[in-house]
Amino acid sequence: MQLHSEEDFLQLIDQYFPETPGSVLVGRGDDCCILPGGSNLCLSTDLFLEDVHFRRHYFSPEDIGYKALAVNISDVAGMGGIPKGFTLELMIPDGLPEDFWPSFFRGMSRLADQHGLTLAGGDLSRSRYLGIGLTIWGEPGASGRLLTRGNARPGDLLFTVGAIGKARTGLHALEEFGAQAANDWPQTVQAHLHPIPRVAEGLILANTPGVRGCMDISDGLARDLPRFLQHCPQSNGAELDFSSIQHNDELLRWTHQRDQDPDHWAWLGGEDYGLLGACSADARQELEKRLSNVAIIGTLSTTRGIRLNGISLKVKGFDHFDSFPS
Amino acid sequence: MQLHSEEDFLQLIDQYFPETPGSVLVGRGDDCCILPGGSNLCLSTDLFLEDVHFRRHYFSPEDIGYKALAVNISDVAGMGGIPKGFTLELMIPDGLPEDFWPSFFRGMSRLADQHGLTLAGGDLSRSRYLGIGLTIWGEPGASGRLLTRGNARPGDLLFTVGAIGKARTGLHALEEFGAQAANDWPQTVQAHLHPIPRVAEGLILANTPGVRGCMDISDGLARDLPRFLQHCPQSNGAELDFSSIQHNDELLRWTHQRDQDPDHWAWLGGEDYGLLGACSADARQELEKRLSNVAIIGTLSTTRGIRLNGISLKVKGFDHFDSFPS
Repeated sequence: MQLHSEEDFLQLIDQYFPETPGSVLVGRGDDCCILPGGSNLCLSTDLFLEDVHFRRHYFSPEDIGYKALAVNISDVAGMGGIPKGFTLELMIPDGLPEDFWPSFFRGMSRLADQHGLTLAGGDLSRSRYLGIGLTIWGEPGASGRLLTRGNARPGDLLFTVGAIGKARTGLHALEEFGAQAANDWPQTVQAHLHPIPRVAEGLILANTPGVRGCMDISDGLARDLPRFLQHCPQSNGAELDFSSIQHNDELLRWTHQRDQDPDHWAWLGGEDYGLLGACSADARQELEKRLSNVAIIGTLSTTRGIRLNGISLKVKGFDHFDSFPS
Repeated sequence: MQLHSEEDFLQLIDQYFPETPGSVLVGRGDDCCILPGGSNLCLSTDLFLEDVHFRRHYFSPEDIGYKALAVNISDVAGMGGIPKGFTLELMIPDGLPEDFWPSFFRGMSRLADQHGLTLAGGDLSRSRYLGIGLTIWGEPGASGRLLTRGNARPGDLLFTVGAIGKARTGLHALEEFGAQAANDWPQTVQAHLHPIPRVAEGLILANTPGVRGCMDISDGLARDLPRFLQHCPQSNGAELDFSSIQHNDELLRWTHQRDQDPDHWAWLGGEDYGLLGACSADARQELEKRLSNVAIIGTLSTTRGIRLNGISLKVKGFDHFDSFPS
């Protein structure tokens, strides 16, 4: 399918994203969409650019459409919110395969449908490189609460929801073996290509007393934990212990073959889109009862720095300008 | 100033966009910003890409920062809303001049300050080309009303607010003479580089009884009027008469020198970021009293097609994939 005009694109978008009445007061096709007033909104925006965030030789068009939306949904999940709608900016180069855009929209719309999301507007532009910009918004769930990064205190427990280091394994396998990596490393490749945003888990966290803060783990604990701690002014650091983490078997095989420490590999992580949070010590039992995929990974401390099994970890700072493995 | 890390960028952004308490509940630095609930929100998103929407050889870094925000504010103005805040996606190539980003942020922050806008979040990424994505939101003014494109009826008057065709003159002069165009074509070059979003006028329109619809004119009347009419199902076309438009003197000089018809030039237009609206015939007097820069340009009709002084105009459809003059 060749798309020669903006009109063609808009028709294709209408086909994959039929407008559902009620979710927005005014949807696509005006200067702005109009969102109904009411509860607070959480809103986030992310870029998803070729050769920075994905490569076309091992991401199918469906994968690109899926992941561009998934990583944004994950930001709402990290606040314990319910995603409601999004706008889409497409940077459209010449020379893409004929079925690229229908496949892209198929991957994206399936995920949007799963979460009942409305595509409320956007912008299209010719461009020299393929890229996607996406802005998403959501609302608090029944608790009325959105979880920010702050508020955790020394003595609070740190926890993760979902695997850590799994998508890193997949990314390294894909970079080394290309699309064929899926043969030997199916679970971890899937984790990199199709991360699952933890919306249901985020809502449970927002609704669990004693949970003090949450964020999504997009860049790996080594980068995201310092960001989390930065918002907890009484805590200068953390004591970590990964013994309650059940590492994925492909992760264990990969790190074993390469003589790497699986805990350190998981610490570096990246692209898992699990959740990182903190709760009071007495909330632990309730949390583990409500969430089967939670792992307590440590304790906030007043001591400066982050230690894993007592050994200081190098903190990577705040730099995700370099998105591909280094 | 060399910016080597995301941290450097965030510090620079903090310098130009200090966070003002109250406008958002949670601002930059978390997974999402949190906007306070209450009235309806209008929200829009636009790309602003090098060599599609601007050229660096005649846009200064300040101009780029200014215009990337101005064209988004204009979308809120087109709804008759009050812009409140925005998120910013920066695609950052290597090799920009040292003072590029401070200048860019200076241009953008001055305009943000004029409108009391909060920069509430965003995303930064290395990229092969310079580009900006921006999502803006606003609220209705005192009238509680936001103006959409629909609702106008046959017999209603069409009007514009602000010049039309002026920025087109500037764009053509800049493409032909580069930055030096500003010497001979200062007003029209300024109109292209620094369009003024018509927020105050949009608010007046939303507050004026009998005004039925509005949009901003970003791509020229030839493209935007059909879009406007598309939302007025009872009207199939329009009879235009530009005799009440006072063309800019540089526009008249440019078109005279090139043997072009100034009315047709104004019709093609583009990048003016004035407003296009419709009102009932009996609202005309009140409208002209309240807005000095309004011009009645025609009437909605039941007849198919758009005519200027009785002569059919070629309608350009919906294609703004080609943004530079053709």
